[in-house]
Amino acid sequence: MHTQHGTFQTPVFMPVGTQATVKAVTPENLIEMNAQIILGNTYHLYIRPGHELIKQFGGLHEFMHWDRPILTDSGGFQIFSLKELAKITERGATFRSHLDGSKLFLGPEEAVQIQEALGSDIMMCLDTCIPYPATRDETIKATDLTSRWARRCREAQTDTGQLLFGIVQGGMFPDLRQEHALALIDIGFDGYAIGGLSVGEDKSLMQEMTEAVIPHLPVEYPRYLMGVGTPEDLVEGVYRGVDMFDCVMPTRNARNGTLFTSTGKITIKNARFRDDKAPLDANCSCYTCRNYSRAYLRHLFQCREILSYHLNTIHNLHYYLNLMAEMRAAIERDQFSAFRNDFYGRLACE
Amino acid sequence: MHTQHGTFQTPVFMPVGTQATVKAVTPENLIEMNAQIILGNTYHLYIRPGHELIKQFGGLHEFMHWDRPILTDSGGFQIFSLKELAKITERGATFRSHLDGSKLFLGPEEAVQIQEALGSDIMMCLDTCIPYPATRDETIKATDLTSRWARRCREAQTDTGQLLFGIVQGGMFPDLRQEHALALIDIGFDGYAIGGLSVGEDKSLMQEMTEAVIPHLPVEYPRYLMGVGTPEDLVEGVYRGVDMFDCVMPTRNARNGTLFTSTGKITIKNARFRDDKAPLDANCSCYTCRNYSRAYLRHLFQCREILSYHLNTIHNLHYYLNLMAEMRAAIERDQFSAFRNDFYGRLACE
Repeated sequence: MHTQHGTFQTPVFMPVGTQATVKAVTPENLIEMNAQIILGNTYHLYIRPGHELIKQFGGLHEFMHWDRPILTDSGGFQIFSLKELAKITERGATFRSHLDGSKLFLGPEEAVQIQEALGSDIMMCLDTCIPYPATRDETIKATDLTSRWARRCREAQTDTGQLLFGIVQGGMFPDLRQEHALALIDIGFDGYAIGGLSVGEDKSLMQEMTEAVIPHLPVEYPRYLMGVGTPEDLVEGVYRGVDMFDCVMPTRNARNGTLFTSTGKITIKNARFRDDKAPLDANCSCYTCRNYSRAYLRHLFQCREILSYHLNTIHNLHYYLNLMAEMRAAIERDQFSAFRNDFYGRLACE
Repeated sequence: MHTQHGTFQTPVFMPVGTQATVKAVTPENLIEMNAQIILGNTYHLYIRPGHELIKQFGGLHEFMHWDRPILTDSGGFQIFSLKELAKITERGATFRSHLDGSKLFLGPEEAVQIQEALGSDIMMCLDTCIPYPATRDETIKATDLTSRWARRCREAQTDTGQLLFGIVQGGMFPDLRQEHALALIDIGFDGYAIGGLSVGEDKSLMQEMTEAVIPHLPVEYPRYLMGVGTPEDLVEGVYRGVDMFDCVMPTRNARNGTLFTSTGKITIKNARFRDDKAPLDANCSCYTCRNYSRAYLRHLFQCREILSYHLNTIHNLHYYLNLMAEMRAAIERDQFSAFRNDFYGRLACE
């Protein structure tokens, strides 16, 4: 897909860069592991250091020293996750900063304006977050509001050359999901996301909802499953036609010492790694696996050394990005099903 | 100076790698900034992960992925810094682990044995730490014990090809310092350190003690001022003939957001850097200064991002290592005095 800052190839995983940085790694580390696009969190950047400041620096790319594509979320998800509940009206969301408690407002127009100031390549519409579980009536209400906000986002866009994606809601009701997809297509966006999943529902329900939406999204536009997920979720998402993913899991798990390998997850603090000379994953070509033993990584983690977070994050992100590259190659060879079987076969070995 | 893992050129600054890592940077980062040799803390490695484990891995170089020279301290300084005082006898020091309270013993023979297991290039003799202030009698007693321990260290060495440095004590008494230097030379070491300074005394007293010792140390052996210091201390040390330094200051200050520049120190959290587009130091060629603004570094520090510690550490270590390289070049041009004047002139500009 083409953006202002270059192209990226789908299916793609976007490392999350909350505070104008993907935690614990440099842009050069991300480039070495072939990260094609990252995600910036609008809420966090709006609160600190502020979108106007970032605009003064020529945008988020320049500010954080990253010249490949960036997708920004709308800020909605973080606002709805705040401890003190946001107040939602037709106009938008009123909420309090988690930093200093100041009262703030974010409507569809503001979400676009902030993302235009950040200068991301792909902006996301402001959507409402539907709690799980929710009744059909609640879901219809919130989804309809999301449609009206989506239209207002599209209308608020100015001529910056940035792309804008719509977000399909509809809760856990397949017919509402389909209906909403069509409503968004009617407005017309540069890509379509599936929102409101991975919110506590069963995996099977998440997959059912994905299946309900995907066939109704136009194939010539990217399809983005937001906030997902585990390696298995990525494989299942791609299997169902998803093109884009983002998740904090690889970076957050890395900092907690949970590391992904081709044969399953490792808890690095485990005593059995005390004198283990092997790399994290014998099949991995990342900087960490090329140069360090499990025993050394365990030692760094036990000491809470900053280098532990750095090396673990490099490995986990490399694992995710490599998984996407493998899926891309399998699709090109028209052997995705075989790849999917292999993937589960390797996991079962552990 | 030649060691098993290559040579290093003096005067040299050794970044401190407490836990088998120089905090917040990779070995490749250290190589990019031309670090020639690093220091490992024997006490910390002895406590965790243990010298025997590191020996199993072929030594500290292999374990931490660093193939340039390493100097290890004896562990004495950390033991004497423990909250619960170590008990010193002729045989050595009995102390409790700061991690689990277990009772441990370190004598001269053990200090050598542990450092041989670590496989460092340069080992340090176990010395006693003289409190400041101390009476002449206390100082004589502790210094004499240090001499006897130094001889036992030399005798305990096996045929590993590692170098062993003696440590000159003598407190704040110039004649005792001189006397002790001669006593150590009489035993014969591969290099000589000045210990027991930077312990709370005035700068002028530290310089006086350095001046008291240096002329008595053989010029063909490296002279090492332990645990020192500020950039000014390094310049004054080199001016007085010191060849080697180590200090946690550049790395610790980096993590606290205090950054060294050619015109003085910067506190990066200061509000005046909020929208400052300039690099930390316009005269610096480090990775951080080449790619990031003060405003971005302030933002990362405010967010307590791990990348903040990484980028700040790269800059501060680069500053220290570059200062040493400049002094080396000035000495080679026979213009050290001019360099020293310039150095203070630049600082005065701020």
